[in-house]
Amino acid sequence: MKDFKEKKLSSKLVYKGKILNLRVDTVRLPNGKEGQREVVEHTGAVVIVALTDKQEVLLVRQYRYPAQQELMELPAGKLELNEKTLECAQRELMEETGVVAGNWNELYAFYSTPGFSSEKLYLFMAKDLIFKEQHLDADEFVEMKKVSLQRALGMIKEGRINDAKTIVGILSAKEELKM
Amino acid sequence: MKDFKEKKLSSKLVYKGKILNLRVDTVRLPNGKEGQREVVEHTGAVVIVALTDKQEVLLVRQYRYPAQQELMELPAGKLELNEKTLECAQRELMEETGVVAGNWNELYAFYSTPGFSSEKLYLFMAKDLIFKEQHLDADEFVEMKKVSLQRALGMIKEGRINDAKTIVGILSAKEELKM
Repeated sequence: MKDFKEKKLSSKLVYKGKILNLRVDTVRLPNGKEGQREVVEHTGAVVIVALTDKQEVLLVRQYRYPAQQELMELPAGKLELNEKTLECAQRELMEETGVVAGNWNELYAFYSTPGFSSEKLYLFMAKDLIFKEQHLDADEFVEMKKVSLQRALGMIKEGRINDAKTIVGILSAKEELKM
Repeated sequence: MKDFKEKKLSSKLVYKGKILNLRVDTVRLPNGKEGQREVVEHTGAVVIVALTDKQEVLLVRQYRYPAQQELMELPAGKLELNEKTLECAQRELMEETGVVAGNWNELYAFYSTPGFSSEKLYLFMAKDLIFKEQHLDADEFVEMKKVSLQRALGMIKEGRINDAKTIVGILSAKEELKM
């Protein structure tokens, strides 16, 4: 099996920001030549498929500035420094939907955009939900919706759910439940 | 329904690169305050689930520098200026796998990371495959693998396929084929 590894020769930090940093690295390519790699550094995040006893999934509607539109997404959020993924998932679900879940299951982790970002997403399934109150950050504007898992599958096909992590989570929930 | 739209007040281009640009915009938030939004501009890309007559899916193994590891992914690639999504899908499938497909079907489009990037991915399913020769770009190092769709589903559960667009594509193919 050929080794395609690229070795870092030098690294330049272009931007240090709030949710991301941008780095441009010079690397040794497998053919011996030099190349440039643009890397959006991200601390990682969690995504939560929270299911009610009636097989409804919790979605959040929010304006996504980079996409210039409101999207329907699974609850999700960035890992804080030294935060464990499960703790983060529990915190984000509470903040965005006001829900506490009695049953948590980590499905798997995946890269959102490995071509240009280090962001890794940890997917959790949450059940046995208790509904309390939302606790949003000062610059978060989020509205919760409950949608049946079947309806959510239809919304993916219609393009009304069009966020990668949300599609991954909903299709994975369907797999898990063997629907 | 509350309107969560964020209005651009000013925009600063931080970096203009090869596969992405980085912009930091000041916006008016729904609560009237000002906020900052970091936006990774990307021209968009295509992803291809190419299926053989035996329900095998074509995967490409490649080193992903931002993830610091080799990943198994569906063939994919960036849209060139003014390129139609189907043309791009046909070109990328040919370049990365050497395959020409007789039957193309656009499933849907989705955002890879709407929290910080404008990148939109267009998912295609390709069938009636004819195998020819790979035509890689100078800095692309890619190896094709054929894997049964069932095995690919197992690889997702085991974390051996851990790229968002690839998980979306494989689970969507399973849906389409009503497996």
